[in-house]
Amino acid sequence: MLAIIITIMVLEIRPPEGHELVDWIPVVPVVLAYLLSFTLVAIYWNNHHHLLRATEHITPSVMWANMALLFSLSLVPVTTAWLGNDGNYVRAAPLALYAAVCLLSGLSYYVLALRINQANPGDARLRAFIGSRKGAASPILYVAAIVAAFIVPPVALVLLVVSAALWFIPDRVLVEDDAES
Amino acid sequence: MLAIIITIMVLEIRPPEGHELVDWIPVVPVVLAYLLSFTLVAIYWNNHHHLLRATEHITPSVMWANMALLFSLSLVPVTTAWLGNDGNYVRAAPLALYAAVCLLSGLSYYVLALRINQANPGDARLRAFIGSRKGAASPILYVAAIVAAFIVPPVALVLLVVSAALWFIPDRVLVEDDAES
Amino acid sequence: MLAIIITIMVLEIRPPEGHELVDWIPVVPVVLAYLLSFTLVAIYWNNHHHLLRATEHITPSVMWANMALLFSLSLVPVTTAWLGNDGNYVRAAPLALYAAVCLLSGLSYYVLALRINQANPGDARLRAFIGSRKGAASPILYVAAIVAAFIVPPVALVLLVVSAALWFIPDRVLVEDDAES
Amino acid sequence: MLAIIITIMVLEIRPPEGHELVDWIPVVPVVLAYLLSFTLVAIYWNNHHHLLRATEHITPSVMWANMALLFSLSLVPVTTAWLGNDGNYVRAAPLALYAAVCLLSGLSYYVLALRINQANPGDARLRAFIGSRKGAASPILYVAAIVAAFIVPPVALVLLVVSAALWFIPDRVLVEDDAES
Repeated sequence: MLAIIITIMVLEIRPPEGHELVDWIPVVPVVLAYLLSFTLVAIYWNNHHHLLRATEHITPSVMWANMALLFSLSLVPVTTAWLGNDGNYVRAAPLALYAAVCLLSGLSYYVLALRINQANPGDARLRAFIGSRKGAASPILYVAAIVAAFIVPPVALVLLVVSAALWFIPDRVLVEDDAES
Repeated sequence: MLAIIITIMVLEIRPPEGHELVDWIPVVPVVLAYLLSFTLVAIYWNNHHHLLRATEHITPSVMWANMALLFSLSLVPVTTAWLGNDGNYVRAAPLALYAAVCLLSGLSYYVLALRINQANPGDARLRAFIGSRKGAASPILYVAAIVAAFIVPPVALVLLVVSAALWFIPDRVLVEDDAES
Repeated sequence: MLAIIITIMVLEIRPPEGHELVDWIPVVPVVLAYLLSFTLVAIYWNNHHHLLRATEHITPSVMWANMALLFSLSLVPVTTAWLGNDGNYVRAAPLALYAAVCLLSGLSYYVLALRINQANPGDARLRAFIGSRKGAASPILYVAAIVAAFIVPPVALVLLVVSAALWFIPDRVLVEDDAES
Repeated sequence: MLAIIITIMVLEIRPPEGHELVDWIPVVPVVLAYLLSFTLVAIYWNNHHHLLRATEHITPSVMWANMALLFSLSLVPVTTAWLGNDGNYVRAAPLALYAAVCLLSGLSYYVLALRINQANPGDARLRAFIGSRKGAASPILYVAAIVAAFIVPPVALVLLVVSAALWFIPDRVLVEDDAES
């Protein structure tokens, strides 16, 4: 489902009317908003996949948590589309809403990891993730981004980018053995 | 296919023109209609997946029933979109049509379970589901919702929400060992 | 990919502006066109799945044929959309074009089955399908539908429906052990 | 995800307003642009699938490279849509941008193959691909197409078609044992 979410986001990028390269200039913020969300969802895609592979027993609360995560992430395309609208990437509300959806996704993911850990106590890597600093860093950055959006909007944008970039310096806990397109 | 149905529903949520949070107020019914349908289809997604895993032999009548289920569920996005249109969530026809598609899906699912049970007589959990109270409760609630829609529309809405919520108090028959995104 | 094709077709069905059941009357031909194409693609989905499972060796010509089939079927949504436009379901060109895409898909499927049979000579069921009457019946019906479209359009419509219905009286060659959503 | 990219491209093809076959004439360039991109992405789909199957260990740099490839390919639909706009298939900028996205995808794929090879040194076929002439031919053709687009646009179009056609004369390294729809 995350692959589908990523792909429908690209539907927001509409080719310009003209036929010169400069006609794309107004489309640039849309493309950059897409790049940010692509990275965000792709990271969940990789990690969520591993998370569920580590899972033997599904309890109702795991099912709830998984649904909450998928629901949160399914709101990414529409908030991305809003952020890509003209000039919105430096405005308070679009940045705050985007960060709020990121926060919701991050918390859902964390709750899902906790629930799976409860249902499958043996998995060492899962426990390591739950205690890792990165699991905590993302939500804090998103809260900071929501606050910043209403004071200095560009700072919120920087925090969102930093939060996505964080995952590319992996702590070698979650991204090890995962391959699927 | 159910993952795709869920995801295309989110395409109905369009970001507002403005750039304030209050600009989202007219979009709220669309988001809530989406949340209801997300839950509905996600529940089928989980259970349908298990159902087919319990299946060794596919007969033509299983194939028919499976197609009928997928067809019914594929009508959820368009009826959801109608329900999300301005003010439609308290109007008779949109609520009744939505409940009718839910009923059709519920009956198709039940017929599919029966057909699979005939083709694979050994599966105890499948038999348990067919005899369970929940399998019967949903259709009754949907019929009640269709009737209520033409008398007191808001009651129909409540019945639809209750019917979805029911599945979160699982009878431990069908949601046990299922994990896939 | 066939699941995705089916699902995007449903995007063509737009909810009407009004909020009465009668407002759906102009949408009925769109829904029926969708039902026909849903059945068409769903049948390929079931059978294509089996066909590729029967395949051990992929040669370049199998790859070519598979691409041709997927390309043909990917044209179904747009011709379905045209057929669903106002009054087009009794007009020559929309019916003929729809039948032509069906014919192209049928032929591609047959060529794919031949190519896979060459590359994997051992599969008895594959050989049985290639020699079966149904493999031959569909293309003949589609050619007849193309011709009929320009003479008595409604006859073309009937032929298209018959051709889809044919597959529900299975010759027990291809639909035996296939289950996947 | 590549299957989804292919399928959403077909959403660009809109049925004409009229109901005669001649009404499709303005749609022809859109269909041809789609055919070209269908072939392009379908080739990656086949090969990418094999590439990841050959992979045991995923390192962060493999993850980066895979994301870059998927991101590049996700830009194909929008550049295809631009190329399909009226008359754009013989204009400099649309052709150059399309070729640039092809080039980006080709380079990402090559980098991905290199990274996977580093992480999984044993795979002989992977090594063979990395040293093969075809891996080098495509990027050169794309660079040539970008240059040609600004001088003699139709030549760029020819180069793009040739580059796709190349993959149908397989060097028997990558297309051997791959079957999945």
